[in-house]
Amino acid sequence: MKKIKYELLKNEKNTKARLGLIHTNYGTVETPMFMPVGTQATVKTLSPEEIKDMNCGVILSNTYHLWLRPGEDIVMKAGGLHKFMNYDGPILTDSGGFQVFSLAKNKKKDITEEGVHFKSHLDGSKLLLTPEKSIEIQNKLDSDIAMSFDECPPASADYNYLKNSVERTLRWAKRGKDVFNNPNQSLFGIVQGGAYKDLRKFSAIETVKMDFDGYSIGGVANDGESKEDMYKAIDYSIPYLPEDKPRYLMGVGEPIDIIEGVIRGIDMFDCVLPTRLARHGNIFTRKGRINIRNLKFKEDFEPIDGTCDCYTCKHYTKAYLRHLIVANESFGARLLSIHNIRFLVKLTEDLRQAIKDDNLIEYKEQFIREYENK
Amino acid sequence: MKKIKYELLKNEKNTKARLGLIHTNYGTVETPMFMPVGTQATVKTLSPEEIKDMNCGVILSNTYHLWLRPGEDIVMKAGGLHKFMNYDGPILTDSGGFQVFSLAKNKKKDITEEGVHFKSHLDGSKLLLTPEKSIEIQNKLDSDIAMSFDECPPASADYNYLKNSVERTLRWAKRGKDVFNNPNQSLFGIVQGGAYKDLRKFSAIETVKMDFDGYSIGGVANDGESKEDMYKAIDYSIPYLPEDKPRYLMGVGEPIDIIEGVIRGIDMFDCVLPTRLARHGNIFTRKGRINIRNLKFKEDFEPIDGTCDCYTCKHYTKAYLRHLIVANESFGARLLSIHNIRFLVKLTEDLRQAIKDDNLIEYKEQFIREYENK
Repeated sequence: MKKIKYELLKNEKNTKARLGLIHTNYGTVETPMFMPVGTQATVKTLSPEEIKDMNCGVILSNTYHLWLRPGEDIVMKAGGLHKFMNYDGPILTDSGGFQVFSLAKNKKKDITEEGVHFKSHLDGSKLLLTPEKSIEIQNKLDSDIAMSFDECPPASADYNYLKNSVERTLRWAKRGKDVFNNPNQSLFGIVQGGAYKDLRKFSAIETVKMDFDGYSIGGVANDGESKEDMYKAIDYSIPYLPEDKPRYLMGVGEPIDIIEGVIRGIDMFDCVLPTRLARHGNIFTRKGRINIRNLKFKEDFEPIDGTCDCYTCKHYTKAYLRHLIVANESFGARLLSIHNIRFLVKLTEDLRQAIKDDNLIEYKEQFIREYENK
Repeated sequence: MKKIKYELLKNEKNTKARLGLIHTNYGTVETPMFMPVGTQATVKTLSPEEIKDMNCGVILSNTYHLWLRPGEDIVMKAGGLHKFMNYDGPILTDSGGFQVFSLAKNKKKDITEEGVHFKSHLDGSKLLLTPEKSIEIQNKLDSDIAMSFDECPPASADYNYLKNSVERTLRWAKRGKDVFNNPNQSLFGIVQGGAYKDLRKFSAIETVKMDFDGYSIGGVANDGESKEDMYKAIDYSIPYLPEDKPRYLMGVGEPIDIIEGVIRGIDMFDCVLPTRLARHGNIFTRKGRINIRNLKFKEDFEPIDGTCDCYTCKHYTKAYLRHLIVANESFGARLLSIHNIRFLVKLTEDLRQAIKDDNLIEYKEQFIREYENK
């Protein structure tokens, strides 16, 4: 019956990376961490037991999707999202903002001071999502961590657009915080401002003034942002974020981006990448991504990675995984999802060890050498 | 390194039902039993561990599908089907005949004495499946039980067609048996003959003369056969089958049909029904079938059946299952498949107990009363 608490254990010697713990009502989790995405109250194809076996700290679920289906009142009546989906680990919900901007039917939307008018991607019905509504839905979903409703401007937005957008996002954050009403839930603020130093600084300082339970860095996972823009977004925001609160880089799941984020002081990451890649037969390995559909795996009776400790690598060959994916069997997506999520979770375990050992830069260089086959 | 052995434990007092064991290279299983179908070397959506948790005795895999994809040589090189799919319980493969007759592209096929010419349902390529080829494929797949290649005549076939078909199926059975070459595998013969007493008798007697390791009753699971025809097919065949070999009714999975089959002396059943129904949201319950999409389950926070011991009923509500199926999440098909398969396996457990207790008729009457809501 309390909010989360971030505990800083150690700063790495040569970078801004930090080792920490987040204490939640559903257990204590270690940071830096990667959070798999369970869009519709299920991490696609996987059971809660499988997610726990992978040592996932937190899972993410999408407010927009649950609002549309089954509806937040159903989830509330079920006893909240944990009970509804039978998951007794910590859950984070996003604000729905990103989906409204990216999924709305025909992507037509009308952004006003009140909120965003758009059409449902399911049935085209007219909807309005406001900061208050997003918080009300999340309060009912009863996740452990809720996110403020922010505008997600396109990567192509110019300075003036972004300046106005940052100011509106601050007003929206305030409005959401004012109506927030769930004593068991924590609320994060979101820093926006593109790749502009002054806008990120302004957004960070003003958001922190509102005193949230944690801070996200947004606007880095649209289509179109370069890696340089992402690093700028982090570097321009982090100095203004408090040491005693967790920092969350939204929508980032490429292994090298996670490493670069951790080095810059990020504690939490989420991305649909491991499960989405899995459904298309793409697999993370220490030597880069492979696609299991490739003919060369047809008679490959070795696991994806003999040193990987995941259920898939312990029991199945590449030849079998290839067969399942080619034959469009969902057990294939399930097995590859297990491997891909475990790959990213294991990466964060390694990163935590590197922080303890103060050798994060060496770890990064070694990882990239192997991952990019150099 | 041996063939299966059927051990008859008990005949029920008031019916032809029998309690037995089948000893296999992968353990001993109890009969009567229900076998879930893993068409493409995977019981759709499920892991081997989940199948074992449901107390399934044997699983079935499809020769036709594995022949086309990934190819029997790949499976052989993997070390056989058990190793390929990571399943260490007994596996039965069908002959491919039923699929050739039902799945072939446009269902155009040319049945000759040699075998069946048809086009692949995957890419339209011209193929020929013969009795020898079917056995050769199954020998390579290295299942525990292989099936003879038979003709599956349509339900509408007349007496003369069926008579010729039965005779050809006998010649095909002989040809298959002659080339059979796997000391770890057993081979079943198949009794055909529609609903004609003399044809079933002739087919059974002549098939048994060839001395197979078990006997199937085929031609009861096409579209179009009535329940009466199915009962006739069983009743006209069973008297001529030996007591010391298992009897398998192919393609039957309706709960009441399983009960009626057991009463008539059947030991083994298989059907895609539990997994296929699951993918469409249909669920077996003791009070008949329900469809979880029904609006009345939207806020139903009870399990499908509070007395069911399956993973799904122990952990999930109908409201959540409905959400998953409506949202097209494969975890929904997985959870419903677990329940539906466990439902049929539990039914066979109950039937075995009823045979022990010599009260099978009472069990049947009670079951039907409840299942048909009378």
